[in-house]
Amino acid sequence: MGEMQFVPGGVTAPKGYVAAGCYCGIKKNASAKDLALVFSKRAATAAGTFTTNRMQAASVLYSKRVVDKGAARAVVANSGCANACTGAQGLRNAEEMASSAAEKLGISPDEVIVASTGVIGEQLPIVKIREGIENLAGTLSQGGGADAAEAILTTDTRAKQVAVELQSSAGPITIGGMAKGAGMIAPNMATMLSFLTTDASLGKKPLHLALTAAVNQSFNRISVDGDSSTNDMVILLANGGPGSDVITERSADFKPFTQALTAVCRRLAHMIVEDGEGATKFVEIVVKGARDNDDADRVARTIGNSLLVKTALFGADPNWGRIMAAIGRSGAQVEPGRVAITLDDLKLVSGGMAADFSEARARELLSKRDIVITVNLGAGKGETRFWTTDLSCEYVTINASYRT
Amino acid sequence: MGEMQFVPGGVTAPKGYVAAGCYCGIKKNASAKDLALVFSKRAATAAGTFTTNRMQAASVLYSKRVVDKGAARAVVANSGCANACTGAQGLRNAEEMASSAAEKLGISPDEVIVASTGVIGEQLPIVKIREGIENLAGTLSQGGGADAAEAILTTDTRAKQVAVELQSSAGPITIGGMAKGAGMIAPNMATMLSFLTTDASLGKKPLHLALTAAVNQSFNRISVDGDSSTNDMVILLANGGPGSDVITERSADFKPFTQALTAVCRRLAHMIVEDGEGATKFVEIVVKGARDNDDADRVARTIGNSLLVKTALFGADPNWGRIMAAIGRSGAQVEPGRVAITLDDLKLVSGGMAADFSEARARELLSKRDIVITVNLGAGKGETRFWTTDLSCEYVTINASYRT
Repeated sequence: MGEMQFVPGGVTAPKGYVAAGCYCGIKKNASAKDLALVFSKRAATAAGTFTTNRMQAASVLYSKRVVDKGAARAVVANSGCANACTGAQGLRNAEEMASSAAEKLGISPDEVIVASTGVIGEQLPIVKIREGIENLAGTLSQGGGADAAEAILTTDTRAKQVAVELQSSAGPITIGGMAKGAGMIAPNMATMLSFLTTDASLGKKPLHLALTAAVNQSFNRISVDGDSSTNDMVILLANGGPGSDVITERSADFKPFTQALTAVCRRLAHMIVEDGEGATKFVEIVVKGARDNDDADRVARTIGNSLLVKTALFGADPNWGRIMAAIGRSGAQVEPGRVAITLDDLKLVSGGMAADFSEARARELLSKRDIVITVNLGAGKGETRFWTTDLSCEYVTINASYRT
Repeated sequence: MGEMQFVPGGVTAPKGYVAAGCYCGIKKNASAKDLALVFSKRAATAAGTFTTNRMQAASVLYSKRVVDKGAARAVVANSGCANACTGAQGLRNAEEMASSAAEKLGISPDEVIVASTGVIGEQLPIVKIREGIENLAGTLSQGGGADAAEAILTTDTRAKQVAVELQSSAGPITIGGMAKGAGMIAPNMATMLSFLTTDASLGKKPLHLALTAAVNQSFNRISVDGDSSTNDMVILLANGGPGSDVITERSADFKPFTQALTAVCRRLAHMIVEDGEGATKFVEIVVKGARDNDDADRVARTIGNSLLVKTALFGADPNWGRIMAAIGRSGAQVEPGRVAITLDDLKLVSGGMAADFSEARARELLSKRDIVITVNLGAGKGETRFWTTDLSCEYVTINASYRT
């Protein structure tokens, strides 16, 4: 039990899901896709986590209500327009997106999750979306997951989907997912969307617990500047049919299920980092020896968000003083003389001061694409991992002209 | 009483101060200056504010002890080396910097403020500094303020000094100051140093109160990414002689003195923003109508620190959605439908949604060097001002190769 392996595909890898993606006319580029539909052929429970931003997009307001009820069978998502800061009209458009999809799929509007990503402040072209939904409803297929994954992208350079199969006590379970997000630092103010599916059978509460745990160990550890957008959401549908055993918090299968779900989320989160706007590095920050896990988290986040650390990484400059300064301002309890910093296997800092390391070797390690920075605070047993990118000129260029 | 005007000069504009600056061999570029000395010919009270970073530089640890006693007559400051993360040796070097200066000036080492700025993790070249101090002690003059202001710079492109004269009830008072800081976002991890002097006479406590109030309205409102460095300090010396009336918290002169001091600090703070690394804009963010001043501060800081807002400013893109998103994640109590945003005199957002504005006019306003963004939350009477820059490719380039 608990054996898990990655398998091909994404949201349609689990049994009983179909999907489709198309261009409906929201994006300027007609060779792109901008509308996605995912559908569970059976009833499904639903869980979700949403942005904590107070300027919540209409899609977030709508989909929260759906998730609160704990059941959903469809996700309709558009890219190119965030439907945020759009007032009552925006909310009506989100409702119409849901009801259009519900009508075509023969389900209730409160079983439809709605998501949007793109520029803030513009109203959705709802007529185009209605036509697009009609088109998509006619082309839903088990092979359509890849098109759906493509249709939710904005400045992403590639689609992001992943699936795992888990041997549970009641037989094989599959979990699949797709995500969008083109950078660490809240590109488009709609950092990330992710839609996950499984053919396991879980009630509302255990599904929520599993999702929260998985998101906390994945997507929540890549939000480099703490910039929760107006549109972020992660949704999980579980459509385990009558034949499948129900997994509760007390089932032997609950922990392996959560671990497999975490693996899916983490892989998708890493794909977002790897596709970061202008990113040239994939950087893992490991913090150990913190007073507690919260302190470890503060330190990892502060390092991962520091412009000075990120620009030094871009320049392959082993300027560890910037890491020390980030640790010092993180708010964690730190004894400067106990801090050690390692770059891959090279010790940079020992006892809070420069270790005797080769600058040339450090530059060589920093010139690689994958970098691991390990900080040991020597203060306790708290630890965490965090993933970030460097900060390049290209990031600035992309974001200086995003709307044009 | 209370009439104030800007006058030429800096730290040596007030009566009884002399200064000097020279190259002593810390920086690679021998045509630069890297060591500054400021001296009060009379006894002076001292106040200071210091970084809250837990990795405090040796100079910060040393100078805090001096300021705690409330009296100081000299400031010796070097650029090019931060003397941070340098352990016991670093503290001994800071002590030696102070004792060398004390010896040459005929005062006690605990009357000497020590400051350093530059790369973290390297030991000070103390022999060169000792020689430099001897050199400086011989060349102190009332005209030496400009050289001192030059000697504390790192990536700054120009020296920053300012002075004001205030008509107090007991006659004219002068306040002068200099600062270093080459960017909003903690360049060199030693964002800013500022040294202020006055010939007014204040005790330890009122001096501290006045300085804290002034710093809170100036330097503390430009730290764009909240990045308090290992070396930040602002020091104020007051050497009012026997002839001058003592200003206490209850004096009629206390408020105008604090206002004049605030004007000096604010001008220096603005000079830091204007000289920001890679900056092409000087941006004032005004927040009004917040529930309270703290909420106004949260909103202003979050906007001023947002990479997405700053890159949009660089690109002259009126992408107000990014400002809305920053407001939403600031932690302030916000009612989205009440938010208004104005760019200079152009209304961008009204009732939380797009106002009917000319995109061309907005781009025109954003193409200017000086920009004012006003946010009205419509929730109360809290307000604040904050100053920031845009984020350009040049910032990334500068910080990717700072040590090389």
